[in-house]
Amino acid sequence: MGSLSVVTGAHGFLGRHAARHLSRQGWDVIGLGHGNWPYSEWRAWGLREWHACDVTLETLLVYGKEPDLIVHCAGSASVGFSMMHPLQDYRRTVETTANLLEYVRLHAPKARVVYPSSAGVYGIAERMPIMEDAPLRPLSVYGDHKRLAEELCRSFGRHFGVSGIIVRFFSVYGPELRKQLLWDACNKMRRNETTFPGTGDETRDWLHVKDAAALCQHAGERTSADWPVANGGSGHAVSVKDVLNVLWQEFERRDGPTFSGVSRAGDPKHYQAEISLAKSWGWVPDVDWRAGVREYVEWFRTEVG
Amino acid sequence: MGSLSVVTGAHGFLGRHAARHLSRQGWDVIGLGHGNWPYSEWRAWGLREWHACDVTLETLLVYGKEPDLIVHCAGSASVGFSMMHPLQDYRRTVETTANLLEYVRLHAPKARVVYPSSAGVYGIAERMPIMEDAPLRPLSVYGDHKRLAEELCRSFGRHFGVSGIIVRFFSVYGPELRKQLLWDACNKMRRNETTFPGTGDETRDWLHVKDAAALCQHAGERTSADWPVANGGSGHAVSVKDVLNVLWQEFERRDGPTFSGVSRAGDPKHYQAEISLAKSWGWVPDVDWRAGVREYVEWFRTEVG
Repeated sequence: MGSLSVVTGAHGFLGRHAARHLSRQGWDVIGLGHGNWPYSEWRAWGLREWHACDVTLETLLVYGKEPDLIVHCAGSASVGFSMMHPLQDYRRTVETTANLLEYVRLHAPKARVVYPSSAGVYGIAERMPIMEDAPLRPLSVYGDHKRLAEELCRSFGRHFGVSGIIVRFFSVYGPELRKQLLWDACNKMRRNETTFPGTGDETRDWLHVKDAAALCQHAGERTSADWPVANGGSGHAVSVKDVLNVLWQEFERRDGPTFSGVSRAGDPKHYQAEISLAKSWGWVPDVDWRAGVREYVEWFRTEVG
Repeated sequence: MGSLSVVTGAHGFLGRHAARHLSRQGWDVIGLGHGNWPYSEWRAWGLREWHACDVTLETLLVYGKEPDLIVHCAGSASVGFSMMHPLQDYRRTVETTANLLEYVRLHAPKARVVYPSSAGVYGIAERMPIMEDAPLRPLSVYGDHKRLAEELCRSFGRHFGVSGIIVRFFSVYGPELRKQLLWDACNKMRRNETTFPGTGDETRDWLHVKDAAALCQHAGERTSADWPVANGGSGHAVSVKDVLNVLWQEFERRDGPTFSGVSRAGDPKHYQAEISLAKSWGWVPDVDWRAGVREYVEWFRTEVG
């Protein structure tokens, strides 16, 4: 343990938590990617170096320093963005992955690569919980591009022996996530809005970002040229309504959320991950979702206001 | 008929023949891509304009002029190159396709796109002839990238209505092809070499490039947002030995080719296309393979020496 790692997209939500986790486990962590970040902040997130740049063959070559482990968090992370700007989304997700794989092939052949993919590659699944070998029928451009990136990884594994692993994350949440349900809900609270899209009965498999970061590290010990795939979730489906009710309690409000009944097109109703593979590695999701929601509200009040 | 078309990769083998065919059918053809080409030559190949440039969103925007039809021949065309330079192969094949699709989405929504893919996406097929719905298990990086490009096309069709069609070409041959079996064989003749890899019993589905060019034009009339897929072959499997025997006759040599018996790793033994879909459009492969081989030898003697 405790050698050199690179985290791409280390300014992002999962990236910064992955960097902190690795650094606490004794790794030296070099961060690469987009984002303006004062020295004190990226140091506090566990980075030894931070390089604000595109993830290209050239920047990896200059800053990468033959790492033992790469967690490739760079890439788009928004369905909405992907539908508005498909070429940019493609560049962020697929092209950075191609660059990274070529870097490993040519200049860091001993590096093990963890690729955080998304449950979005499954689309609407026929069975819950979703197994890793379920058919891939993404519903969004974002999901299409994550799937293409996964396939590029496997191609470099098959033909050039690049060693990696894919973790398909479900609904990762936690402090620093400035979008999606909890973020929207906290902001609505401030504006005294209480209505949400959908019925509230939609379920998601919520995974705390600390558990996600720990899973990245575990996965890094299981890489191979076959690029195995593991789901990253809690294994539980929790409804949007239940999540919001806890959030309401935390804000000490007597009323509750209401729902428009109108679902967003292309939003799957239910998501639940089968996670026995990841658990077989000794990883266990640790943060109960209720505690996670309360922690998020506390973070929001302290950091956002 | 007879409106504006763009052929990317128009300096290449299929591209130049596609340009000539379209221009003879009354289309104005703008060519884009890599290659140094004197004015007299590209005019002779039927181009109204030739722009030596990368295929990017910007160059398409500047030179494309809202075409009615785009035949996207740009891209890598070599298995060997793809294994040596996977990132460059990826850029040529997948990235140019992403750029083209975004161009159509944003600036040429009425354009119909023909994407010449490759039988290489099938890999080793279980049944001959190969149907379009056969499983895709490419054996090479080249095949992987062609498959990724196909999937990008479908993504832009599904989400943004970009209208196109995929033609999976088998062994396209003809004048101007300066690689592969006939090229190698003619060059060996000049050096008095007679030995070839494999057993000679390997079969390929040979399609004359004029037939391939005509198929591109037919396919352009069948595009949709679903991006249908059609095989481009003759429908016949002809062995390497049979092809070389005709070539030997044409060179008026008494001896014949010999074979090392050693096959190249990853080379499928047999290829034969099921082509009833393309034939249902009224397209018929016109050039008999024997006549095609003789014509190739004549071209080689005249143009190469």
